[in-house]
This record gives sequence, structure tokens and C-alpha cells, in this order.
Amino acid sequence: MAKRRRIYEGKTKDLFEGPEPGTLVQHFRDDATAFNNKKQGVITGKGVLNNRISEYLMLRLHDIGIPTHLIRRLNMREQLVREVEIIPIRLAVRNAVAGSMAERFGIEEGTPLPRSIVEYYWKNDEFSDPMVSEEHITAFGWAAPQDIDDMLALALRINDYLSGLFFGARMKLIDFKIEFGRSYDENGEMRIIIADEISPDTCRLWDVETREKLDKDRFRRDLDGIAEAYQEVARRLGVLPTSGPGDVAESKTVQ
Amino acid sequence: MAKRRRIYEGKTKDLFEGPEPGTLVQHFRDDATAFNNKKQGVITGKGVLNNRISEYLMLRLHDIGIPTHLIRRLNMREQLVREVEIIPIRLAVRNAVAGSMAERFGIEEGTPLPRSIVEYYWKNDEFSDPMVSEEHITAFGWAAPQDIDDMLALALRINDYLSGLFFGARMKLIDFKIEFGRSYDENGEMRIIIADEISPDTCRLWDVETREKLDKDRFRRDLDGIAEAYQEVARRLGVLPTSGPGDVAESKTVQ
Repeated sequence: MAKRRRIYEGKTKDLFEGPEPGTLVQHFRDDATAFNNKKQGVITGKGVLNNRISEYLMLRLHDIGIPTHLIRRLNMREQLVREVEIIPIRLAVRNAVAGSMAERFGIEEGTPLPRSIVEYYWKNDEFSDPMVSEEHITAFGWAAPQDIDDMLALALRINDYLSGLFFGARMKLIDFKIEFGRSYDENGEMRIIIADEISPDTCRLWDVETREKLDKDRFRRDLDGIAEAYQEVARRLGVLPTSGPGDVAESKTVQ
Repeated sequence: MAKRRRIYEGKTKDLFEGPEPGTLVQHFRDDATAFNNKKQGVITGKGVLNNRISEYLMLRLHDIGIPTHLIRRLNMREQLVREVEIIPIRLAVRNAVAGSMAERFGIEEGTPLPRSIVEYYWKNDEFSDPMVSEEHITAFGWAAPQDIDDMLALALRINDYLSGLFFGARMKLIDFKIEFGRSYDENGEMRIIIADEISPDTCRLWDVETREKLDKDRFRRDLDGIAEAYQEVARRLGVLPTSGPGDVAESKTVQ
């Protein structure tokens, strides 16, 4: 592989300079972190699986007219993506109570919400990604009111579609977080598109029957079968790599 | 079974007086019709399957906050539903070109649409359910502008969710038609809820890989394996009745 410039080293992914201006290569590592980096580990094969799962989900969303940064998957761990101006706000869409919301309000995990709730978090490691309101977002200039409207509308459509897709594969989408970026076309026209990834790192997925957790909560809570849970999600979506997710070697032949 | 009053005899379903005021019993027959009743036939076991499939899909939509007329399934062929004031407009939501749209515009079937398109049809047998615009609907008083807005917003959410659900079960939702009714609570407050059914009689479903038709188009076009296609949809959704869809006898023990 030719030497290439790393633009950004994230907690679980790296971004490299892409082959053309306006593109990046997104590389999925096996690293796992939780609780704002206080817990760290490795889930063998996770990068391979999340690369496939995120590719699959973004293609599906593209099919229903929701724009994403994905251009195409390059190999087992990498995908070519559109470079975007990242909006420093992470949206969390919740269909049932779990994680920090269960703690925050003292509600039992798994309790369905009266309606889906969207929360905003400021992406900032130093301050542990604090929850913010639309007031903060517009006052500090992180996003314009129109950006917020667009992100909210997209997040709700994504939630409806993915809730259906996962339920069809016998999983309940409890919640997910999603990031967006601004993408500019040749005329300078801006539109907001999905960035980052959609995977068991970013979604809470429960088996519909057993309520077994099939996501990063297994890592957060020291449950066993972490890698197997990610494999199970890929298998149910029909995207389990044939060479085996434990195969951490890069493959240049896959496309 | 006690003698009960039939309120309405449809082409494929009957409505009977329900056990309580404001309720009806919806009975699914095996009759099939197409081309505005010009073609008629029987698909053995279809009523049993559509009862299950429609129950399942309405429960899923209820889960994401979309109100439906379903109260509960009663037996193999019947469900208890809320009595509504039917709005005489059928909505068709199209994700790809098929059926009458392919003919109307000379576009090849299966061509994806640039975005999902919603059409309105006036439910009227005598005039073969003509397509209408919002202008006709409001001018003739079939529905108020607010009703149309509500139906459109619901139809788009239903489309996003069901597109995901069917894709998770390896089917592409090409298009579907849906009917709504006005439901009044004890305070006289009105809301619009899904009525009728959602099934392979009302949805076009193609296998994701083979593009095989798994819906009423098999009947419309004299293809073989009609009953098997309905069974396959039920099987993929996980609701194939264990006693077998060919079992046309009523069962009072199922619930």
C-alpha cells in the first residue's frame, strides 16, 4: 500500500487522505472504548464487521433517499467516504430507555418511550460530550436552526427505516447515535449528509424475543460473547464476511 | 358461533357487528379480485395469511406510534377492529415504478423513482377508483386539507418503516396502498388511523435478490405459486400459522 497521510486518529477509526480531493479513507480498527474513553479494549474482528454493517446500512438509507458520506467499501476494513464539514453535534434517537437515560431519570432499562426522543450532544472529549439543547447549539454557532431542522428530520426518518430493518432481522432498535456533516457540491450548494458509522458500536440492538444485547453494551458491561454479538448482527443482516470476521488480515481482493 | 349482523361485504373481506359499540369484526376471505373486479378467483388460505400478516404489520406500526384500527386478532380469519369513519381516499405510496404507473408513463417496471411518490385514488367501484388530486379531494369534501396532511405524513412514515421491515426480511417494498379512517375518542376528539389491511393484497413485494413477485401480481398476471408466495411472505415475517395456511377451517383456540 502506498504511504498515505493520516488526517485524524479517532477512538475506533482512522481517517486517511483519499485518492481524490474531497474524499477520505475511513479505516475501522478493532479498538473499543466506553464511558468517554475511561474503558478501553479490543474486540477482535469488530473493525471488519462494522465496516460491512455500516456500509450495508448506509446503502439502504441511500436507497430511500437519505444522503450519506459513503462512496464505496474499499476492502475488509476501509471505505471511501466524502469529506464533510463535521457538525460537532451528535444526535441520539431513543425508542426505549437505556444507558445514560435510564440513570438520568431512574427509569428501568427497556421501558418504551411514549414517543421517540431525540437528544443532542456536543462532541467534545474534554468535556465528555455534554448533552445540549437547541439553544446552546445555535447560541454557540455549532449549527444553524435550519441545520438542526434538517438533522432532526433525517434522524427521525433514519429511525423509522432502521427500526423496521432491524425488526425484520429480529432485533429491536433501542436507540442509536448519529453524526452529520455538511457536504458542498461543485456549485457550492450545501446539504447535510450522514457521516461517521452506523453499527453495533453506535446502536443499541436487542434480540426481539430474548432481549439479549447485541451491541457495545456487552463490552461496556463486561458481558461475554462480545465479538459473537457483532457477528450475529452481521449474520442477521446478511453481510457476514465469508472469510470470517476473525480474519484481521487486510484483503485487497474484496470489493 | 352466535348469529351476528354483517355490516359490509367487501371484495375480499366482510365486516360484522362487533361485541361492543364502536368495534367491528373484520373477516378475511380467500377471494381474490383484480382490475376493479374484472378478474375474480380464490387463493386457498389467503384469508388466514393476510389476517396474520396484517395483524403483524399493524402491531409493528403501533409500536412506532402510528395508530391503527386493530384491537386484536380473534381467530384464524378474523380480527377485532375499531369502527372508523372511512375516508373515501386510498393512498398509493410508490418507491419504484410498477403496475398502473408503468403503463401510464411507459416506464419499465422496477425502475426506482427519484423519490417516493404518493398518489390519491377516490374509492369508488362504479368509476373504477379514479386517481384524484388534493384539489378534487378538498373541493368535493372527501377530506379536509388537514386530513390530507395527516394522511400524507403517516403514509411516508409507514413507507419508511415498512421498507425497512420488508428489506430486513429480504423483500423490496415496491409500492403499497393504504386506507385511513377518522376515529373519535370519548371526548369527541378526532384522529386519523390506519384502517383496512396491509398484506400482499395491498403491497407489491419483490424478493431482494431474484426480484420474484411475492404479492397479488402473481394472481393479476396468472403466474403460478400464488398461495406459496403469500406463505413465503408470512414465513419471512415469522408469522406463518403453525396449523398451515391451507387450513381453511376456523379455529376458536387460536389467539
